[in-house]
Amino acid sequence: MKTIEWQEDKLIILDQTALPHQEFYLELSNYLEVVSAIKKLQVRGAPAIGVATAYGIALGAQNSDADTTKEFLNEIEEICQSFSAARPTAVNLFHAIKRMKLASQSDGNVSLIKSTLIREAIKIHNEEKEATAHLSHLGAKLIKNDFTILTHCNAGPLATTGYGTALGIIIAAGEEGKKIKVFADETRPLLQGARLTTWELMRKGITVTLITDSMAGHFLSRGKIDCVVVGADRIAQNGDTANKIGTYSLAVLAKENNVPFYVAAPVSTIDFSLKSGEDIPIEERNPEEVTHIGGMRIAPEGVRTANPAFDVTPHRYISAIITEKGIVREPYQTQMSKLCR
Amino acid sequence: MKTIEWQEDKLIILDQTALPHQEFYLELSNYLEVVSAIKKLQVRGAPAIGVATAYGIALGAQNSDADTTKEFLNEIEEICQSFSAARPTAVNLFHAIKRMKLASQSDGNVSLIKSTLIREAIKIHNEEKEATAHLSHLGAKLIKNDFTILTHCNAGPLATTGYGTALGIIIAAGEEGKKIKVFADETRPLLQGARLTTWELMRKGITVTLITDSMAGHFLSRGKIDCVVVGADRIAQNGDTANKIGTYSLAVLAKENNVPFYVAAPVSTIDFSLKSGEDIPIEERNPEEVTHIGGMRIAPEGVRTANPAFDVTPHRYISAIITEKGIVREPYQTQMSKLCR
Repeated sequence: MKTIEWQEDKLIILDQTALPHQEFYLELSNYLEVVSAIKKLQVRGAPAIGVATAYGIALGAQNSDADTTKEFLNEIEEICQSFSAARPTAVNLFHAIKRMKLASQSDGNVSLIKSTLIREAIKIHNEEKEATAHLSHLGAKLIKNDFTILTHCNAGPLATTGYGTALGIIIAAGEEGKKIKVFADETRPLLQGARLTTWELMRKGITVTLITDSMAGHFLSRGKIDCVVVGADRIAQNGDTANKIGTYSLAVLAKENNVPFYVAAPVSTIDFSLKSGEDIPIEERNPEEVTHIGGMRIAPEGVRTANPAFDVTPHRYISAIITEKGIVREPYQTQMSKLCR
Repeated sequence: MKTIEWQEDKLIILDQTALPHQEFYLELSNYLEVVSAIKKLQVRGAPAIGVATAYGIALGAQNSDADTTKEFLNEIEEICQSFSAARPTAVNLFHAIKRMKLASQSDGNVSLIKSTLIREAIKIHNEEKEATAHLSHLGAKLIKNDFTILTHCNAGPLATTGYGTALGIIIAAGEEGKKIKVFADETRPLLQGARLTTWELMRKGITVTLITDSMAGHFLSRGKIDCVVVGADRIAQNGDTANKIGTYSLAVLAKENNVPFYVAAPVSTIDFSLKSGEDIPIEERNPEEVTHIGGMRIAPEGVRTANPAFDVTPHRYISAIITEKGIVREPYQTQMSKLCR
């Protein structure tokens, strides 16, 4: 199973909206199809979105008919604008765009730059895989034998194209021979926990219990959870973390019950330009994700909804942020700045 | 729209599992059908369960062919046992059984006791309606103009056969001319918020925004909510409250954000025999309620689940308990004991 695979003139992605019922691969042969796959969450998870964006830009570049470098770079600019409008919260997307733009500024004719862009996308992909593998093994040290771990949404191989972040840590702890159990929040509205996290953990032979999001507090209060581990879509300078809606609630409930709350993310998820979580843009998605489940209406016609896809967890609730460059704790402001050196 | 209606030889109930798509009434002509309707949540909500139980026992008694009082009372005992096994958490069910048993001990022949039981069930029904109307108007004083109120699950007319508890207060505040808005948690697994609360509030012309359970913390943290009001399935002596799973999380999140958290329930929901919430039995329901939504599978085959239908909110998170006999605050132990005088 590969989340994203580059094949010369096309990008193969595992359609995450079809899981767990179908393991279905999309063949994307132009960049607009990649933008669409990101918007529709066919590929999702902050690191995977970054990788798909990089390959998507490379694909768009490869398909360009531009004769002059100037014309070509204008096309690249247009392609990058399409990607930057795809989803607003995961910063990895913007990091990937920045790196691909920089790579496109390299010397050489159109053909050479096309090759450079493909190499850069592959490099971004490999770096993400290495980063998540590394942070998973670092983070696994925090998981003790017999731990029961609560996680939210999906931050596994599917979300990262590599080892995973939150699930990477869990999988690494399992591979180290630790006896562990996982509680997975189903993660409404789009059920990434029910559909993807359970599927990934069951394939890895890790015991997982599916619960609704509303049950997490109950199990935390009853002493059933030893730690919470989640991924991240964007982390500000001060450690404030945007992640899937519901994460903030878990963090508050974990603190209230003296349970450690860990965020796992590669350094590419940190936005060093933002002072705090207040500055992180929160994506508001389609109301139908709330009023419908799998195409089936669950609420009265005409009902109002709100559908913020993410929330922000203030750093004071976070016990540690686990990156490939080390495990960071309070004071985040100073500790995080060391990571970008 | 009537949640429960007694008609001489049968009980009519609005099938709450068919809402909001269909307004469908069940005609129940024997007590086992009533037990089944309670188990399946076709009738639900602690006060409504109590009323349905009372009528169900009256119905079973009415259908009895017993010739002697002794034989008849044995049948009543058997009927009561069926009801007491239907659902474990809502104490109103057990209160109703106790009162109906007591009524069956009255003097007279089988025919007279049958009439007594019907009168007692009607009395229980009327008392619940009066209690919820009264507590709704009392509680409405806590709702100020321009308030946005968060509620969980469904504690409206459907749940109570009368005015409602949590929703009763909201509806009463609206009737007083206060400008109010409501955020309704969808309330997985069975979506009472999405299906029933939105439906009831839209019919009353009250502005309601449907959110997933995981979004409540986000809106609390952003200052969008002025108070939280929920119902209850059982309240212990010390104020600890069992209510729909997810309530505890809301209470913690409300306290963390300095938002008042109110529980609304008739005195019949208080179990004066229990010292604390630790003693409240929590119903564990069918795993399919978690793995399926509306009959559609949302998780891999063979996944483990947990499905506690309720959680317990310790009294320290509760700003006030609103009953028909008054609004009670800390210290609950002493304040609540005054209610049963």
